[in-house]
Amino acid sequence: MTYCLGIHTRHGLVMASDSRTNAGYDQVNVTRKMHTFVLPGERAFVLLCSGSLSLTQSIITLLGRDFDLGKGLASVANMYDAAREIGEQVRRVSEMDRAALERDEVRFNVHFLLGGQIAGQPPDLYLVYPQGNPLRATEDSPFLQIGEVKYGRPILVRGIRYQETPLDEAAKYALISIDSTMRSNVTVGPPIDICIYQRDELDIVHRRRLTDKDPDLIQIHEQWEQTLRKGVTELPPIDFETFGQKK
Amino acid sequence: MTYCLGIHTRHGLVMASDSRTNAGYDQVNVTRKMHTFVLPGERAFVLLCSGSLSLTQSIITLLGRDFDLGKGLASVANMYDAAREIGEQVRRVSEMDRAALERDEVRFNVHFLLGGQIAGQPPDLYLVYPQGNPLRATEDSPFLQIGEVKYGRPILVRGIRYQETPLDEAAKYALISIDSTMRSNVTVGPPIDICIYQRDELDIVHRRRLTDKDPDLIQIHEQWEQTLRKGVTELPPIDFETFGQKK
Repeated sequence: MTYCLGIHTRHGLVMASDSRTNAGYDQVNVTRKMHTFVLPGERAFVLLCSGSLSLTQSIITLLGRDFDLGKGLASVANMYDAAREIGEQVRRVSEMDRAALERDEVRFNVHFLLGGQIAGQPPDLYLVYPQGNPLRATEDSPFLQIGEVKYGRPILVRGIRYQETPLDEAAKYALISIDSTMRSNVTVGPPIDICIYQRDELDIVHRRRLTDKDPDLIQIHEQWEQTLRKGVTELPPIDFETFGQKK
Repeated sequence: MTYCLGIHTRHGLVMASDSRTNAGYDQVNVTRKMHTFVLPGERAFVLLCSGSLSLTQSIITLLGRDFDLGKGLASVANMYDAAREIGEQVRRVSEMDRAALERDEVRFNVHFLLGGQIAGQPPDLYLVYPQGNPLRATEDSPFLQIGEVKYGRPILVRGIRYQETPLDEAAKYALISIDSTMRSNVTVGPPIDICIYQRDELDIVHRRRLTDKDPDLIQIHEQWEQTLRKGVTELPPIDFETFGQKK
């Protein structure tokens, strides 16, 4: 499995992904699911992927080949077209592999998150479905997730606000969200790749890879657990005795 | 959908359930998913259910009929047999309805949580699968969930400890867990039924039904959100600049 998320606020983007891949339960590996395409000062994209590693690798390879030739992501006019470009490569690999996979009852199941900015335009965040169509994050729904999305969602719902949340806080929410997911689904695992993209930066410079032994991650994990436990003890008591009367 | 959970600590049990049922998206109702079977001073059971309302109603009806005759849950010798008794009635209704359902591609999908105690024995908590077989909560895994289980799991994983967590705190964890779930899945909804069973009480007296307008639930909801937001701001900052060196 996989868990990746992107957060879009008025200050920019936070993109984060786990690194565990598995083929069945007995073949587990580490792979980077965060890929960047940058022309500094002109355009910067961060791409996160979930689904069959063979398929996402193919799609990233095709995107990278075009990018190096100044095509595709290197030349699209805006973020919508960039998301459409991801979708085009998804469909291209679907053409190549889908029939053979489905013959053996393997689903064609890849999802992408694309965050980035092109000079002179605002940053944007998209999810690209296995069918190639894009979905955009909005001010009301300022984060998008792919993979194992449920465990890590409540903390984002409660915390992320497009207008208010600073990027450094959004990054902490992202780490807590991934940490929560890793504790419940063993097929989501470290290291965590995370990057902050500040609006108009037009380069990817604030990155970090956190292993499970990273002291910062351990501290966040432990302090967060203490915060939750203390917070629960401080909640007002629930009066059960008065149930009969209150009804 | 549904979300129910049971928590077992050395002090007793907390059982909680939402009340939303739906047939499709355009037919939504309120129904109680918490059922009790009590012979005060001798035995007390709380039963929570998820799955097709028609099926769980049948099973509850059969259990109640036997109970009123002094059979079934009224006479089983221990909690394991009580869980097996639930399973027996699940299988009985499966015999009656499963073939007809599957003919129309409706799955036979019911789950139960059974918490309770019989005099002279310790309390126990079981999950009963659609096939009728039981799973018991343990000291290492002191809570069980049915229905939409993922959104509300991280807070339980971080907070519930069999030896340490007092029952009134466990009840707060249960409410937060359900509240988190209701915010992300619209097919899980209020009112919330919750009860605390103190070890050796052998009756169900600490109950509460919280509607979405209940001032206690609103306060917990709001205070919890503040706790999380404050907790995030107090986490140590993540240093992104040093990424290159740290690697």
